[in-house]
Amino acid sequence: MQIVHVISDLPHPANQTVGFVPTMGGFHEGHLSLMRTAKAECGFVVASLFVNPTQFGAGEDFERYPRNLERDAEMAQAAGVDILFAPTTDEMYPRRGTTIHVPAVTTLWEGASRPGHFEGVATIVCKLFNVVRPNVAYFGLKDLQQCLVISRMTADLNLPVTVSLQPTVRESDGLALSSRNMYLTESERAIAPELQRQLISSALALKDNNLSSEEVEVQLRHAKSSLEAVGFRVDYFELIDLSSTHSTHSAKEGSALIAAAYLGKTRLIDNIIL
Amino acid sequence: MQIVHVISDLPHPANQTVGFVPTMGGFHEGHLSLMRTAKAECGFVVASLFVNPTQFGAGEDFERYPRNLERDAEMAQAAGVDILFAPTTDEMYPRRGTTIHVPAVTTLWEGASRPGHFEGVATIVCKLFNVVRPNVAYFGLKDLQQCLVISRMTADLNLPVTVSLQPTVRESDGLALSSRNMYLTESERAIAPELQRQLISSALALKDNNLSSEEVEVQLRHAKSSLEAVGFRVDYFELIDLSSTHSTHSAKEGSALIAAAYLGKTRLIDNIIL
Repeated sequence: MQIVHVISDLPHPANQTVGFVPTMGGFHEGHLSLMRTAKAECGFVVASLFVNPTQFGAGEDFERYPRNLERDAEMAQAAGVDILFAPTTDEMYPRRGTTIHVPAVTTLWEGASRPGHFEGVATIVCKLFNVVRPNVAYFGLKDLQQCLVISRMTADLNLPVTVSLQPTVRESDGLALSSRNMYLTESERAIAPELQRQLISSALALKDNNLSSEEVEVQLRHAKSSLEAVGFRVDYFELIDLSSTHSTHSAKEGSALIAAAYLGKTRLIDNIIL
Repeated sequence: MQIVHVISDLPHPANQTVGFVPTMGGFHEGHLSLMRTAKAECGFVVASLFVNPTQFGAGEDFERYPRNLERDAEMAQAAGVDILFAPTTDEMYPRRGTTIHVPAVTTLWEGASRPGHFEGVATIVCKLFNVVRPNVAYFGLKDLQQCLVISRMTADLNLPVTVSLQPTVRESDGLALSSRNMYLTESERAIAPELQRQLISSALALKDNNLSSEEVEVQLRHAKSSLEAVGFRVDYFELIDLSSTHSTHSAKEGSALIAAAYLGKTRLIDNIIL
């Protein structure tokens, strides 16, 4: 594996399918699983490691976000990555300027909770697509709305990249892997899997019955209070339509339950697609 | 020459330099000159013909903008174009969604006079770059701020395209060629070249002297009243810094005089780079 820091050093192998895994580092099994899938499906794999400042809001964890290039490089190499692209901020943003907006799927949920976040995500992903020029790019469904934003941007801007969305990788107790799980205290970590358990039990309650709008609302409120009862501060717990991200009362194909909740200072998100 | 209406029919010749001339049709010598330059510099030339609805504001001339595919196709063929890409609106915009914003160079002048115009321009040019995948794209300097927007967007988003800016082509009396010149009445057409004449005489007055800010202001006001005196309604007549598009009082390299003025209902723009 080669570590590349400068855009102009990136190779563009002409006769191989290039798979791409954009990351912010802090690798865990979720990232490694994307890299292994990329390696299995493509001849050549580029992973990027860039803690993108434009997707962090004021007061978020940009400064303390985990950074350990040496550890991450070893893990990426073992997962079959050919090129680890780790640019500096100046290399990616010699100046701030052009931004990409995907209003159709960014006004609600993570977009509402984190103003500017998805503009930052869309812009850096477009830039990375243009410098890496992959055939296929891999993203984890844990960040469901991010997946919708990137899929939508890629289609709308006719970017010549296939977006491949991969299942969330979880701890054995169900907690979705996230670089931010390391912020959890021991007691918060013990409570954390309850987020997925509540998503599963709500999904079952919503899916198997022909519920009225009111009954759906009651179920969602019940889920929130159950989470609050065990120590979460719930940001949202909603049933949404995946094409619009709008709330829906119909738990059918093309809908998902999405949740964001704090344990202490740590914000966890998770989802289940119906 | 082949006329292509559908994105998936566009060829991507692997071993040739692809030159690209994006247009809205209504071809005149300005367009043809870009096509001939592209043909001279690149092995393979794609021109696009798409009257982009997202760059027209309410009350602008989207409906009456000149459309004549047969005439334009003949002219493009004669200029050496290999592929004329003429998509429908549905082909380019199956839905509205993602937009590209270049605030650093779009808040003033044309951006201020035509809200949303440059978001429309930046978005369609990015989309066209992604479907045509040219090595070099050609634009005319008559639309100077558009050139700045596209250059800036291409750099900021790391689009793998070289933007080549070409001199304005003019009528023998100096009027910059524009598809909109056809809207001019005979008497307006007789007055129209005065716009360039005023730009030239102001440029000379500003360049050869070490003028104070006040003297520059006086010169610009004088230019405006001279144009108003012969029948223009001046939108702006300004000395700007090309990197920021901000007004400047220093007529040095990297600055330009830019003007927009109405003759009747027709809005003309022109500029001179110092």
